[in-house]
Amino acid sequence: MQEMIPVSSSEKHEFIDITPQVQSIVRKSKINEGMCHVYSMHTSASIVINENADPSICLDTIDAFGMLVKEGVWRHDKVDGNADAHIKAAMLGASQTIPVKDNKLLLGTWQAVSFFELDGPRSRKVCVTVVGK
Amino acid sequence: MQEMIPVSSSEKHEFIDITPQVQSIVRKSKINEGMCHVYSMHTSASIVINENADPSICLDTIDAFGMLVKEGVWRHDKVDGNADAHIKAAMLGASQTIPVKDNKLLLGTWQAVSFFELDGPRSRKVCVTVVGK
Amino acid sequence: MQEMIPVSSSEKHEFIDITPQVQSIVRKSKINEGMCHVYSMHTSASIVINENADPSICLDTIDAFGMLVKEGVWRHDKVDGNADAHIKAAMLGASQTIPVKDNKLLLGTWQAVSFFELDGPRSRKVCVTVVGK
Repeated sequence: MQEMIPVSSSEKHEFIDITPQVQSIVRKSKINEGMCHVYSMHTSASIVINENADPSICLDTIDAFGMLVKEGVWRHDKVDGNADAHIKAAMLGASQTIPVKDNKLLLGTWQAVSFFELDGPRSRKVCVTVVGK
Repeated sequence: MQEMIPVSSSEKHEFIDITPQVQSIVRKSKINEGMCHVYSMHTSASIVINENADPSICLDTIDAFGMLVKEGVWRHDKVDGNADAHIKAAMLGASQTIPVKDNKLLLGTWQAVSFFELDGPRSRKVCVTVVGK
Repeated sequence: MQEMIPVSSSEKHEFIDITPQVQSIVRKSKINEGMCHVYSMHTSASIVINENADPSICLDTIDAFGMLVKEGVWRHDKVDGNADAHIKAAMLGASQTIPVKDNKLLLGTWQAVSFFELDGPRSRKVCVTVVGK
């Protein structure tokens, strides 16, 4: 079972909660136990599992990555101006995998699945694959 | 095949080797070839595959993350005081996946699977899922 | 379906594009839809999905990790001299997972699968596992 989720970002750096869309694909898969792979089709965006109860955590994470990887100081910035987004995406990885149990994502109490835009605003795609039984 | 491992941390930052528990779930699964997904059910802890032959590597890794992400300087610290743990967990990701071969984890010579506590001491849960044949 | 790819690095820090080798294992697996797990058998090297259209992105990423994690200042450096490689490998994770569709890796337009050597030159091994139907 595999499906693409369209994501539309409106800011340069942005967390977009995609848990409901991923949950709905897991339901449709009818897979009872297994795992769900959530994959960013891009090299300047990533998938993060974080707490979304306090939205300031997303802003803090955006700020932290901004401090760790400066903008505009890299070789690739002479070509495209978004080297920092590529470096951050490499640090984060392209995907997250979540256990599936009872035909649902098995998330911890505070966990949400977010698309992390690192070079928006853009139209993006996330590929969700569910395997198991 | 899916099972939960309880983990009990005793320090704020701590590496806890869970390789034997994960290995034992792989054995019980009777899956010969496939993959094993090891997932932290928390947003302030992570899973890391590292060398545990020299325990100083774990301390170095804790120190390195402490230098990269300062404590107590974030928006969320006004709410909860553990923003650094959330940011580090986002950087590390919630899970690691390991190949399974001959009904065993296929780890490299120096690789161990560790739970990385970022905001202990706490009682934690790790979900292990094995898929394959 | 599981197979080992040998990788030979020639520099201390190096990105080696292994997309063709991974693609070829996916083909051989005859799996039409599912996921492909690409795993570094080492604690001082990692797998990264990045853009390889502009090779300067790889150099920028090597530089960025060099700035984030200094060399030669850690406890483990008294034992082995490569603590920075272990810390970077922990940050990056040991593997990446890519969706499989129509018996091929489902990569985004700019995505390539690279082996990221953090302590070369060395002979390395990458384990590729394909699951699905």
